[in-house]
Amino acid sequence: MKDSPADARRTALGELGLNNFPPYLMNRIMGRYNTSLRDELAALGLTTPQARALAVLAVNDGLLIRDLAVFAVVEQSTLSRALDRLQTDGKIRREADPDDSRGVRIFITPEGRATFEGLWPHMDDVAAMMFRDIPDEERRAFVATLHKMLSNVRQHEF
Amino acid sequence: MKDSPADARRTALGELGLNNFPPYLMNRIMGRYNTSLRDELAALGLTTPQARALAVLAVNDGLLIRDLAVFAVVEQSTLSRALDRLQTDGKIRREADPDDSRGVRIFITPEGRATFEGLWPHMDDVAAMMFRDIPDEERRAFVATLHKMLSNVRQHEF
Repeated sequence: MKDSPADARRTALGELGLNNFPPYLMNRIMGRYNTSLRDELAALGLTTPQARALAVLAVNDGLLIRDLAVFAVVEQSTLSRALDRLQTDGKIRREADPDDSRGVRIFITPEGRATFEGLWPHMDDVAAMMFRDIPDEERRAFVATLHKMLSNVRQHEF
Repeated sequence: MKDSPADARRTALGELGLNNFPPYLMNRIMGRYNTSLRDELAALGLTTPQARALAVLAVNDGLLIRDLAVFAVVEQSTLSRALDRLQTDGKIRREADPDDSRGVRIFITPEGRATFEGLWPHMDDVAAMMFRDIPDEERRAFVATLHKMLSNVRQHEF
């Protein structure tokens, strides 16, 4: 690989340190978030992809599978299996899109909503624990930066 | 579950909106980060756990497996398999800890370091893309908040 001007300016990870590389810190924090919720998910009989699908549908019902995959950050093949199970358990239902005969929209059922409502306090508590002793203003600035970052990296219009 | 004062104050996710729930935004952003690197990892013949282990060892060599698992955010059983493969490929070596006969320390080899050095420019570029048009001062404030959050959630002294 030929050195570009960007390579000449590049700082090695060793000089930067893991703790100054934001994706490392974000992976560490999200790893703890996911681990903290694992027992609650297990108690509710949910996998992470199932839980993410329910959380998104609780807020944004009736999505197409491909859009639900983006919101839930789950690959479509994994999501399809998660939805099969959620449907068997009566937590979601699939409906043909009236505007597109090949499109399928996913709806949360009252039972699915009740499951999510059992999970949400734990999600909210873990998020609150992340921000312990962080002032509201700092939290708002952090979320504003996250919005800019998502807009930089996303490949969809939402 | 009995309502606690925290439940009385709790905001539903539907009122808050996904875009105001930081773990959702962080999952979306890290999902794109991991997807963006997937082709580079595949070209280098690495899985995500293997790549994370090499990245951590490139900076912090000679870790015990349990500490490497924390830094790399990979479960120990998954990490052990990743290390088996990296060892077969000559990218790491295991050494008995001189201070603890049951402890094993992991060292990156020159070949492992060369592999990581082929990957790092892509990791750095994806991170730079995340922060496009975000001023340095805002980035520094964001990283400072990440440090507080990691210190809130972590269960280890690093």
